Parts: sequence; structure tokens; C-alpha cells
Amino acid sequence: MTAPLLLSGSANPSLGNAIARALGVAIGACLVDRFPDGEIQIELRSEVRGRDVYLLQPTRPPAGEYLLEMVLLADAARRSGARRVTAVMPYFGYARQDRRVLGREPLGARAVADLIAAAGIDRVVALDLHSATVEGCFRLPLEHVSAVKPLAQRVRELEKPSVVVSPDLGAVKLAERYARELDLPVAVVHKQRLSGSEVSARAVVGAVKGATPLVVDDMISTAGTMSAAVEALLEAGCMPEVTLCASHGLFVGPAMQRLSALPLRRVVTTDSVPAPQASGLPLEVVSVAPVLAEAISRLSQA
Amino acid sequence: MTAPLLLSGSANPSLGNAIARALGVAIGACLVDRFPDGEIQIELRSEVRGRDVYLLQPTRPPAGEYLLEMVLLADAARRSGARRVTAVMPYFGYARQDRRVLGREPLGARAVADLIAAAGIDRVVALDLHSATVEGCFRLPLEHVSAVKPLAQRVRELEKPSVVVSPDLGAVKLAERYARELDLPVAVVHKQRLSGSEVSARAVVGAVKGATPLVVDDMISTAGTMSAAVEALLEAGCMPEVTLCASHGLFVGPAMQRLSALPLRRVVTTDSVPAPQASGLPLEVVSVAPVLAEAISRLSQA
Amino acid sequence: MTAPLLLSGSANPSLGNAIARALGVAIGACLVDRFPDGEIQIELRSEVRGRDVYLLQPTRPPAGEYLLEMVLLADAARRSGARRVTAVMPYFGYARQDRRVLGREPLGARAVADLIAAAGIDRVVALDLHSATVEGCFRLPLEHVSAVKPLAQRVRELEKPSVVVSPDLGAVKLAERYARELDLPVAVVHKQRLSGSEVSARAVVGAVKGATPLVVDDMISTAGTMSAAVEALLEAGCMPEVTLCASHGLFVGPAMQRLSALPLRRVVTTDSVPAPQASGLPLEVVSVAPVLAEAISRLSQA
Amino acid sequence: MTAPLLLSGSANPSLGNAIARALGVAIGACLVDRFPDGEIQIELRSEVRGRDVYLLQPTRPPAGEYLLEMVLLADAARRSGARRVTAVMPYFGYARQDRRVLGREPLGARAVADLIAAAGIDRVVALDLHSATVEGCFRLPLEHVSAVKPLAQRVRELEKPSVVVSPDLGAVKLAERYARELDLPVAVVHKQRLSGSEVSARAVVGAVKGATPLVVDDMISTAGTMSAAVEALLEAGCMPEVTLCASHGLFVGPAMQRLSALPLRRVVTTDSVPAPQASGLPLEVVSVAPVLAEAISRLSQA
Amino acid sequence: MTAPLLLSGSANPSLGNAIARALGVAIGACLVDRFPDGEIQIELRSEVRGRDVYLLQPTRPPAGEYLLEMVLLADAARRSGARRVTAVMPYFGYARQDRRVLGREPLGARAVADLIAAAGIDRVVALDLHSATVEGCFRLPLEHVSAVKPLAQRVRELEKPSVVVSPDLGAVKLAERYARELDLPVAVVHKQRLSGSEVSARAVVGAVKGATPLVVDDMISTAGTMSAAVEALLEAGCMPEVTLCASHGLFVGPAMQRLSALPLRRVVTTDSVPAPQASGLPLEVVSVAPVLAEAISRLSQA
Amino acid sequence: MTAPLLLSGSANPSLGNAIARALGVAIGACLVDRFPDGEIQIELRSEVRGRDVYLLQPTRPPAGEYLLEMVLLADAARRSGARRVTAVMPYFGYARQDRRVLGREPLGARAVADLIAAAGIDRVVALDLHSATVEGCFRLPLEHVSAVKPLAQRVRELEKPSVVVSPDLGAVKLAERYARELDLPVAVVHKQRLSGSEVSARAVVGAVKGATPLVVDDMISTAGTMSAAVEALLEAGCMPEVTLCASHGLFVGPAMQRLSALPLRRVVTTDSVPAPQASGLPLEVVSVAPVLAEAISRLSQA
Repeated sequence: MTAPLLLSGSANPSLGNAIARALGVAIGACLVDRFPDGEIQIELRSEVRGRDVYLLQPTRPPAGEYLLEMVLLADAARRSGARRVTAVMPYFGYARQDRRVLGREPLGARAVADLIAAAGIDRVVALDLHSATVEGCFRLPLEHVSAVKPLAQRVRELEKPSVVVSPDLGAVKLAERYARELDLPVAVVHKQRLSGSEVSARAVVGAVKGATPLVVDDMISTAGTMSAAVEALLEAGCMPEVTLCASHGLFVGPAMQRLSALPLRRVVTTDSVPAPQASGLPLEVVSVAPVLAEAISRLSQA
Repeated sequence: MTAPLLLSGSANPSLGNAIARALGVAIGACLVDRFPDGEIQIELRSEVRGRDVYLLQPTRPPAGEYLLEMVLLADAARRSGARRVTAVMPYFGYARQDRRVLGREPLGARAVADLIAAAGIDRVVALDLHSATVEGCFRLPLEHVSAVKPLAQRVRELEKPSVVVSPDLGAVKLAERYARELDLPVAVVHKQRLSGSEVSARAVVGAVKGATPLVVDDMISTAGTMSAAVEALLEAGCMPEVTLCASHGLFVGPAMQRLSALPLRRVVTTDSVPAPQASGLPLEVVSVAPVLAEAISRLSQA
Repeated sequence: MTAPLLLSGSANPSLGNAIARALGVAIGACLVDRFPDGEIQIELRSEVRGRDVYLLQPTRPPAGEYLLEMVLLADAARRSGARRVTAVMPYFGYARQDRRVLGREPLGARAVADLIAAAGIDRVVALDLHSATVEGCFRLPLEHVSAVKPLAQRVRELEKPSVVVSPDLGAVKLAERYARELDLPVAVVHKQRLSGSEVSARAVVGAVKGATPLVVDDMISTAGTMSAAVEALLEAGCMPEVTLCASHGLFVGPAMQRLSALPLRRVVTTDSVPAPQASGLPLEVVSVAPVLAEAISRLSQA
Repeated sequence: MTAPLLLSGSANPSLGNAIARALGVAIGACLVDRFPDGEIQIELRSEVRGRDVYLLQPTRPPAGEYLLEMVLLADAARRSGARRVTAVMPYFGYARQDRRVLGREPLGARAVADLIAAAGIDRVVALDLHSATVEGCFRLPLEHVSAVKPLAQRVRELEKPSVVVSPDLGAVKLAERYARELDLPVAVVHKQRLSGSEVSARAVVGAVKGATPLVVDDMISTAGTMSAAVEALLEAGCMPEVTLCASHGLFVGPAMQRLSALPLRRVVTTDSVPAPQASGLPLEVVSVAPVLAEAISRLSQA
Repeated sequence: MTAPLLLSGSANPSLGNAIARALGVAIGACLVDRFPDGEIQIELRSEVRGRDVYLLQPTRPPAGEYLLEMVLLADAARRSGARRVTAVMPYFGYARQDRRVLGREPLGARAVADLIAAAGIDRVVALDLHSATVEGCFRLPLEHVSAVKPLAQRVRELEKPSVVVSPDLGAVKLAERYARELDLPVAVVHKQRLSGSEVSARAVVGAVKGATPLVVDDMISTAGTMSAAVEALLEAGCMPEVTLCASHGLFVGPAMQRLSALPLRRVVTTDSVPAPQASGLPLEVVSVAPVLAEAISRLSQA
Repeated sequence: MTAPLLLSGSANPSLGNAIARALGVAIGACLVDRFPDGEIQIELRSEVRGRDVYLLQPTRPPAGEYLLEMVLLADAARRSGARRVTAVMPYFGYARQDRRVLGREPLGARAVADLIAAAGIDRVVALDLHSATVEGCFRLPLEHVSAVKPLAQRVRELEKPSVVVSPDLGAVKLAERYARELDLPVAVVHKQRLSGSEVSARAVVGAVKGATPLVVDDMISTAGTMSAAVEALLEAGCMPEVTLCASHGLFVGPAMQRLSALPLRRVVTTDSVPAPQASGLPLEVVSVAPVLAEAISRLSQA
């Protein structure tokens, strides 16, 4: 069985290089460019016939373009005789469109999963999906890996939080995983409904007074949830030294502005998507390359 | 366009009759029996050619048998020229197997959804699914209806609860829907993790002291969650007059024993699965026939 | 290439163990249980990544449950990285629903075959299918093995029949296979139509007077066909010492009562489904483990 | 709903015209020709958009060419907007390849069924299939009609047979259907196995001495089975005035020679495939146009 | 049958409005926006149940985003009960990736066609595809319409060309269609290979000396082909008053600069993609709304 | 990994033998015959379980029969456990039906590609397809090889042409490939449209006066295009010594008559289809066995 062939789309080439180094292989040669009219141009330059191919592509915004790039890479690999094509998607765009609430919406996560299958991709590696139920959108096998352990490890090295805080009800299970790693209690911030007509307010459940919180979530997008949670924690009397931790650091829209207004000691995240440059934030980036390289290594040996 | 043809499997024939009455149609004639060796015997006796067929079958335990019965009904209908086959599944078995946690498990909800599609069923009507994300398991259109309004309406007619309680974090959104209907505040019982090594305890978030609680969930199965939640509420000082409300009343295993030990005023549920006979519980059963008839009527006119 | 991984559902675990012994492998570890609500719980405990997996599950009644169990086992194996999943189904339920006669019936054998394919099963091993045409229901490769040789061998060791009898027209080809193995003539019992309006009667074609018959069929279900054939043979003057032989011994409904009324020397069958306990019948059970182990061995080496 | 659009391939255009007349419609205009290199040229000249299209094509030899012609007709119809495409196949080639016997053979009937589905055909009408189990090869709905009633009716008008004879075990059920129509007894010719090593001989079961036989089968191909059966009947003392009846009259290879050597009163068959010209046989051809027109009419109204 | 429901993605909303006006219907209400993280947000606000839905979306660059938007619109429509979903794609991105030349490339046109099918789209309307062979990438019906007639009509109204010129060999058939409409001769510019080692040169075939050329192509992208052709024509002695005509006016990259250097009387194109604003070109835009409205009208009545 | 197993259908068995020799393997044993009724009879006699199977079958006329033969061979191989089935189709029938021009035609190339996929074929090897865009009809990987190099090589050995001529616009790219191999200039014959109403005439572009032309095309079918091109070349003053070269020599209908009227020095073609016997033409046949053997060797090692 030949070594795995790792190819990287343009969504995070430096992570691709890091994974290749961790695997001890050269990254596959391929042209990923644009034609003059803006259409994606792909040409694989490594031999792929009979190879076990891994395509690294986090589908961060603009997810349509990165998704199509991945689809075209997979098409080229499959038509050129790849034995198997695995999409390595450390960030899975549209994971949050995993249910229909209002009625006439799309079910975005399933639609994207169907596109991936239509592209002839055989298998997906995902990292800290927004929800584990997203796997139900896939018929093909999905390998779900996590950055929680290395993130918790880095937090332990750098900080001394005394409570892990889930910023809303959706992250409670994630917070419990951090808590187990760090041997800490959990607190939860949640929007409480006061009555049928009254507006809701954010309440903190758990002992946070005087504590140094580590607020965790799967991603920091606009930082709205994080920001509101930190404010609720401060009102509840926590120490004005907060650490944020999330697997995916998108930092879009008003994120930087919101975060810069908070008393943050550190923001710990990964390179699942490229980290922002010169953000002014006390940003600590843990690489997911070891976790992904380990997964690729495990998958390619079978 | 001809009237819809409603056929009922053997999982809940009396609900089938109730829906037919609500639609103002005769229920379709079909033999649903067993051969001497125990294999399911199906023979449709109504003409189905060109008809818009609705198969009522909640896949309650033994879900494999009821599912196969539905598959065979659908096969008979499709091969006999039905224009479209819609599975009406007020209870959807295996909905709780909607993610893989331990690793080498099946993703049961997706496996069942794939069997339904393989059977040539065109569309599904579900009622108060365990989680809205189950829709992601389906490629075919799923019409998701709810018994929350009629259940809340019946509670309002019969009881005077002063707080809606979610018995765990998973039912908070459902509790908020009841709260809106009844113009009440929400409280949440949740298992709190005290530290990395300490065992967790159930805490109540929200004002429940002296209140008369309405504890709501999507289903009552073994009643373990409900029972623990009521005990936590009592410890937190609620009135010893509790009403339970759930869309699906399975009451399996130790359910009756657990519930009979609680100070219950009333247990309100629906006929999505056949209600237990002579249970000794103060059971109030709201029929989902109007909700399902309305959905069938709406779907069949388009 | 690694050794095959044999997993057994709950339909016939002792056969699973026998096959594993014959293959010289340990049977794969997996939990096949029920949740409190009766839903099937599966957890594979052996590593399956990259393995060639064989799932033993005869889909005897209740076939829906055993089928769903097999589907969930296959889903778990496939999602956990099995290289290939082969269903080993020594008894294939619903094989007799292989045509539509009355019109608005299902085509059960095809419906079941489609469910098996939808589950991501790659290949099926079947044993003495009710009819070889059932293979047409499958797009995936079906390996059809037979217990006729070991059954005939055991009969030869134990008995001295002088004629092989097919109890109806459907089993004539099977009877001829036994006759070749045992070097005996064939007789046929068949329902003869006397005229357009007269009822039919069972006639015996072939010399049976004074003979010691071996009546063979693919299965003994309610034993109705066998019982009527033996009575016709006795009327035709055969010796009152009859041996019955069938690949599948279901013995359902009135089977035991019917058989105990006949002058049987022996009933020879296999463990394709678990043999009845303490039946009072002179039952001789030949194991199909060697035949199935041989098939698995052959399939797994390619 | 518009009238059905009937198109005919080149396998039996006169039957196409007869069906059109029976339906009271003009047959659809289409070019079915050959390019100079022998490839099939299709051009539909009637408007098909939104129409319910019926393609008449018995896949008689050369079945590959007639099948491909039907596939191309279906492709043209589907791409041009046909609402639904039904293949009307009064003769279904490769139906006898419905099981695998020797091992490394194809399962021809299933392979053909899969090609039909791949062509985008929605539904099939078949007539007196070699075996009803062929329906299991199809996932799409198959409407199985029969020429037995009109054939029996014509026999009744022309002849006075006194026994219906099945020429082998495979046609017994068919013989019983004729017997019911004609109120006659049934006899069976079958190859009897004398012992394990002796060769078999053809025996007649049932009273045929002095009788006037009507020998029935689904098709007359090389007439080998028919010829051997008639010889066995004559040896058994039947009257030397035999009528043969079969739904499909292929008359290939040595058929004419074999049949001309027999004391035949009449050979009754249908125009499911074009009848042979100037055969010298006392051939009576019953048209299946009424049966097929009735089926199309029934299917197109739903 | 209800009126067609026309929905427009964000790729060309003003064309959507123009088609709606031409059809005499209100355009369907739907939200097509972006979430703060850049992911596409879709919500249909018109009732779609049972409707025949047409999604207008030319997949111009960034084609990945517009394609995904169309996919999500289709998913929402299908899951909400649309009877049929037709993608109206007056510009079909990636049509030029219709073959693999260098080896390890993708077959982009087929990959995109497969994504469209995976999205549950039933039918496509395309306009002046780069090549008619792109239809082979689609299994679903493709309605191919053309702007050649209205473009030629507008040219006739505005200009007096005396020869139609194809700027390369690929556009010769298109040029002939214009020539037939305008009753003009055709000339061809093509790259001529002088020998095995010499570089090629552009030659003009046909009489262009002193003529007023109308140079036609399916699209103007970077204007490289057009620019080289005009230069060749000028060298060959044509009048320095050239009209360009193309169905799709992308005008990307150096297009404006190249075109502004040419002696152009007019550039005639359509609104298949939004026309450039304030281009400085003598641009004449013919709307394809009538052609598309006519196609939708024709398709929706069947 | 075992050696590839090469099986040959009946369309070109001598090429099959030549490829086997080139690969250094024995050709696989299989029966490819006809039943008495004309239906194809297939029985594989080599073991195929786990083998990498290559089916040689150019689908020359009658393409329907040869295609079905290939489908049945593939079905037998797949059901008998072949690891992978590759169709080696040096001539691909229906490649010219690669677009719909008149409207209600089939898209024959796509229809055939869909049949091939439905047969369970995993991969296709094609040789000098009529157009590279035919690959878009296939979802499965297509390996496109060429006989241009060996054909040019043989021409170089035998003749001294001084110009490569494309007989119409469709073969220009092919002519350029020959020109590169032979280091010659290119000329093009094309039908020129003189005006909107005038009929077209064939013109020659490029210097051919006094030249010795090599006219190349992908195939010679009825030889109409070749014949007209040679006449145009002669009128343009080329030497009356013309060489024709094409990958596929079908020579159907009036081909021989047309070619015998031309001043041909030689007609160079391949054995992609069996060469005509005793044609009277100065025919030189280059075997494609080396090219195909090389492709099989390359594909089977991966």
C-alpha cells in the first residue's frame, strides 16, 4: 500500500504544509488557480493513479468557492484513477444550517453533504463539527476528530482558569469535555425566558463569583455569543480576566471590535481556518495539523 | 385530483380511523396480516392506481416489524400504480440514534431514513421529532407537524400550572414553545457538573419555589428523566402537584412504576402511539388526528 | 490482507460461534442488545477499519427485527471503516414473496433486497434459497451455497431410503439433486386438476409402492406440504417409515402437531435457523457451519 | 389530461398500428431508421412535451438492437419533455436468463431490467412473461397482462380439445389457467428421473389415452419442448390431432421442421412478435392489440 | 395547473424582474442574503407547495457562490413541496471545461451538472451554451434556447454589416446561424499552423477586403479572441468599422482595455449576465427576457 | 495483486488475442455464443473472483448487440466476484450522437454511457473518440488513448506526404496532432457558406498546390467526407497521390466504391474494428494492440 497523497486546496495551504510535515510526506503538487474569467483552474501534477488521496479544504467563506474547488479537485483525482478520495475539512461550512426552523428554508448542511457525495468523494474527515448530528447528513463515512485535547492542554500551559463556562445551552456538552480535561467545574450562561410576554435575559448558572473563567465554544464567528456571555459573567462577579477558547476562529464582521472591548487575557483557537493577521487580540493559535495527520495516518493504513 | 387514500398499518389502526373521520373519507381497505410463518402479509383492496396514498404507521417498538410492514405497504402501493406515497409517522422510531458518540455505533436515524427512501416512499410526515436535525437524515421532503398547540390547549383547559419546566437541556426549546402558548415562565432542570472529578447533581434554574409545574418533553419512555426532574423540583420547593406533558407516551419498562411514585395531577399525552390501557395514571390523551388530517389535507391538495 | 472479521447478530449466535471455530478465528466482539424502549442497540467492539466484515444473520421471524439488526450492524461497520460488508444469511426471509399473484401485493423479496442494498451491504451469502430466481432481486453479488450435499451425506449414514420424493412441483429440481447424491429414483407428489370444475387431488408420480421414501423440500414451515405428501405416499402404498429432509427447519404454527401424527423415522434439517428444543421429533440437525465457513474463506481470500 | 401518445419501434410496427386503432388514436409520428454506418437514428415528430408516452417494442431477436432502439426512443421522449414513459414489451427478451445455474453466467433478465431503468423508462407493460418472478428484477412498476383468455376463447371457437397438456413442469400453472377457461382436465408431460445413474424419460401424468390434446406453453421457440411432448402424448395413446397454443410464437431454428413432422390440427399464437409468413403451418394468430390497448387505456387514465 | 413561480437568485435580479414582467406574473418573494459569517441565507416567502418553480440564476463568476445559492434555493423549494424545480441558467459557468486535455484535470462541466442534479433540480434551461455537447453532461432534460435571432434582429436594425466573421474555428456554426438570419456570407479567422516547428499565424478565410464585418461568438470574456480576430480582419483589409456580437458579455480582466483599442462601431450583447456599467464601450444590450419567458411559458404549460 | 484478466467479446477477437500476446498473458476463457433463439449466451470459464477484469469490445455495428454482449459479460464478471471491471472499447459506437440538434432526438452517446454504468462497469478505455467531449457523458473514469503516434509513425515509414489535411473543421485539432508528429504544415478543407441564400462550396485553406497530401480523420465510415475532401484537394492542384489515415476504418455502405474512385496511394488505419477482407484498397493496418496493452498494464498496476 502506497503512502497517502495529500493535496491542498487554496482555503488553508499553510495548514496543508503543516500536515504534510507531520506525516513526513511531501505535499502533492497541483495547480489551483483561476482562469481569467474567474473560474477555478485545477491541474494535478503528482501521479494519483491508485493512490489514497486526501484533499485538505476547510470550507470557510466564501464556502461556495472553496467547496467547488474541492469538488473539482476530487473530480480530477477520481477521473485520474485515485483509489479513494477523502475530503479533510477541518472547518465544515453550513454546519449550522442543520435543521429547518421557519419552514421554507434549505437544509444547508444536508445540501452540502449531498454535493460532496455527488463529487465522488468517498469519505470525510471533520473536526469539531457544530453538532454531531451533522453526521446524519452524510451517507459516506465521516471521521470526526477533535481539537479539544490540544486546546485544553495549551490552556493548561498558559492560564489558570477556575471554571469552564458554556456561553449558551448548545455548548454545554463541549464545556463538559473541557472541564474533564482541566478538572474544573462548569457554569452555563443561558438566555432565560421570564414569561410568555417578557423579553429574556442572560443568566449564569453555576458558581462564577470571583472565578477566572474559560469560556468555550465550537467557533467564534461574529463573537456575539461570546461577548454577551462575558458581559453576563462580569455582571455575575467573575474576575475581569477572561480566556476564550474555540476550535474555529473565524472572527468575521464585528468580531474584532466586540472582542477588543472585553477584558480578555487570551483567545485560544486553532488554524482550522487561517488565523487573522495583526488582529490586536492576545491570540494563541494551536495547530490542528497533528490531529489531522494522525487521522490521515490511521485512515490510510487500513 | 382525486381524494387522498389513507391506509393504516397495524401500529395504530384506531388513529388511522380517527384521521379518516377527520378527513371525511373512508379508510382504505387493505389486508395487513401474518402468514403462518410470521412473515407479514399485505394485500391492498382499494384501487390505488393514480391515487395520492398516505400510509399511517408510527414506528413504535418493535420498530423493525412496523417499519417493514410500512415498507411492504409502500411497495404494494407503488407497484400498483400509486401516484405518490407519503409515510405518516407520528412516532419515528430510532430518532434518538441521531449521532455517533462512542465510535463504532450505527447512525440509526439515518439508516432508517435510508430504508424509507429505498422503499420508494416519496415523502414523510413526522410529529414532534426528538430533534429537528433528524430531517437532515432525509433527502425526501419531510413535513414536520406538532402536537404542542393542542397539548397546551388541553393543559390550559384542565390545569393551572404556573411554570413550564424543561426536565433537561435538550427540551428547553420545546419548553419555550409551551411557555409562549401558555404565557408562562420557563425553568430548567439540568445535570450540573461540579468539578472534573465530582459526580454531577441535578439543579433547577429558574423560580419554581411554590410554583405548580408543567414538566414537558417530547416523549415519556422509561420516565427516568421525568422522574428525576420532578424529584429535583420537589426538592427545590415546588408544589406537590405536578403535570407532565409529552407528545409521545411510550411508557415502557419501569415507566408506570416510576410515575406512580410521583405526586402527579395529570399526565397529558397524545395517541401518536396507542395509549396504555388501565394504567392507573391520571392520563389525558389528546388525539393527533386533527393535526395529521390537516397535514394530509394540505399536502394532498397540492 | 487481514483475516475476515465475523460478527453475529442475535438470530443465530451459536451458528456464528460454529462458523468462527470452523474458520479458526475468534468471533468479533460486538454488543447486540436492546435499549429500554425496545430499540436495537449495537456497538462494535472489535476494530473494523479496513477489515473484510461478515455479518451472520438468518432473517427468520420476526424478520423485520432481525433485518433491522443486520442493517444497523452493517451501518456501524461501514461508518467505522470496514473495507467490505458481506451479509451471511443462511435463511433469507420473504424469499417466498418473489412474485405478485393477486395484484396489489408487495414484491417482498425485492423490497427486502432493496433494503439490504440501501444499508450499504456489498455482498450476500445465501443458502438454499426458496428459488434461484430470488438472485434477480439483487443487484449486488449473491453467493448461493447449498446444504444438499451434507444433508444427503447424513441421510446416507443414517437411513436407507429407496426413493426421493418431491412433495410438490416446486421441489422437483431439488429432489433431483438429492437423487443424484444418493443414486435413487425420484417420485413427485402433485396436486392434480381433474377438470375445470372438479377439485384437485394429490397424486403420486413414480414408483413408491413398498418403497421407503425420503421426502425433501427447501424448508419445513407449517409442515402442511410435507404432511399432505406423506399421506399421499402412504395411500400410494409406501412403507410407513418416512424420512423428511429440508435445509431450513422453521417448524412454525401447527408443524409439530402435524409431524407427530406421521410415521416418521427421522427429520433431517440444518442449523440455518436455531433448531427447536425438546420437540419430541426424531430430529437430526446437520450444521451448515462448514459450508458457510468455506464460502467466507473463499470470498475473503479474493 | 391529454390522450396517451403511442410510439412504435421497428420490432412490430403492425401491432403498433393495431393498438392505435384499438385506442382510437393516431400512432405518434417518429423516424426510426439507420444511419449509413448502421447506428440507429431516432427523431420524434409528434410533440411529446407533457405527454404520457407509450413505446411499443417487443425485444425479440436481435434483442440488443431492439432494446437499444427502445432506449433511444425513451431518451428522446424524456429529454423532449414527456411526462412519463412506459415501455410496452409484449415479448420480453432474456426473460429466460432469470437465474444463474452454472456459476459464472450473467443474470440476463436483471441486466436487461437495469438497462431499461437506466434509460429513464418509468414503467413497463409485459405480456405472459416466461416467469412471474421476472418482476423481481424490476424496481419500476410492471404491469403484467395476459393473452390466455383471448387464446382460450379462440381455441374454444375453433377446436374441441378434451385435455389441456403442460409440456413440462414449468408450464403447469399456465395449463391450469387454460383448463379453468376451457373447463377441461390437465395432464403433464415431464422428464422423469429413473434413478441416480439412469437417463430420464418423458412420462405423461394424467388421462390422455384417446383424448384430443391442447398443448400449451408461454412460447414456441425452437419447438423442441412441444415436439417432445407431442411425441410422448402420441405414445401414451392420444388422438393424432393435436392443437398447440402459446402466447409467443418465435419459431426459430428448427421449429418449422419439427412442427411440420407432427400431426397438428392447429397452432394458435399471438402477434406479440410478427407472425411468420407462409410458414406452411396451420397457424392461427390472435392479436394482443385489444389486451395491450386496454392496459394502456387503464394506465393512462390514472 | 397553477401559474409558474419564478424565483431569482442574486446573480441577475433585474433579468428576473424582466422575465416576470414578460410572463405577466409577480416575481416570487424570497430572501437571498448572507449571514454575518458570509454563508448564504435563503428563505422562500411565497408559497411553493405544488408549484412549478423556476429559479433564475446565471452562474457567472464567482460561479461557486452563485451555484451554491441556486442549490440552496432548490433545496428550499423541493423540501417545501415544489412540484418541479427548473433551473434557468442563461449563463452556464464552467461550460468551457467540457473535456480533459492535459490529463489530470477535472471535467468541470460534468462536475457542475452532477451538483445540479444532486440538488434535486429536475430540469435546466440554458441559453447559447459554449457547446451543444454540454447537454451530454446532464441526465436531466435540458432546454437549450438561443439569443441569436433577437441579436441578429437588433444588428439588422442598427448596422449594415456585409460579412459575418467567426473569430475562430469553434464559432463557425454559430456564424452560419447569424449569416442565415442576416443573409450574409461567412468568413473565418483561424490560427494556421505553418509547419511542424513554425509558430502559427492568424489567417482569414473568405472575402473580407472592403467589407464591414460582424464578428460573432458565444461570449466575450477577456476579449482576447475577438481582439486578435479584429486585428487579422483589419490586416486583411476590412473596413475599420467593426461590430461585435455575442450572447454573453462577461468583459473580464483586460477586456475593456482590449476592446477600447479597436475601431468598434458597436458591441451587441445580452443581459444574460448583468451588463457592465459605464464601460465607455458602444454597448447595445438586448434582453433575453422574452426568450426565457417564452421557454418558461412553454415548459410550464405541459 | 494478481495479473489482469483479459476477456474478449465477439466484436474483435483477433485484437483480443493480440493484446493478450502484448501483455504476455493468456486470454481469459469464456463462452460467447448464441442460444437457438438468438439470445446471447455467456459463460466465463476462467476464475474471476478478486481479479481485475478487462473486457475488450469495440461497439461497432450492430452496436446494440455488441453492447449487450459487453453488458452481459460485465454482469457475469461482477456477480462472479471480479474486483473491478474495465470496458476496453477501441471503437465507441454512438459517439457521434453527442448533441441534440433538431430537437426531439436522443442524446445517444449519453444514453450508451448510462447503459455502461448501469451494467456495473467501473471504468472505460477508449481510443480516439470522435470528440473528447464524449467523456462528459461518463461519470466513471475514462482512459482516453490514441493511435495517432503509431499511425503517424507508419505513415512516415511508408510515405512522404508534404501537407496534413483536415477534411472538415471538426478534424483540425487532430490534423495538428499529426502535423506535430510529422513536422508538416496543415491545410483545411471546409464547406464555405457564400451568402445567406447561396449554397456552400468546399474550399481549401492552406497551401496544397503541388503538395502530396495526407488526409486525416478519426474514422472512415461511408468515406463521404474523405471523398469530397480529396476532390477539393485535386481541384486545388494537389498531386494525384493521396494518403488517407484514420483511427477507425469502418468502410460501410458506399465507402469502397467511393474510395476506389480516388487516386489513393494508401489508406492507413487500425484494427480497432476488424479490417475489411480483400477490399481492393491499398490498405495498411496498424495494430492498436500495443497501445491498449500499455493502457491495461498501466491501469492494472495501480
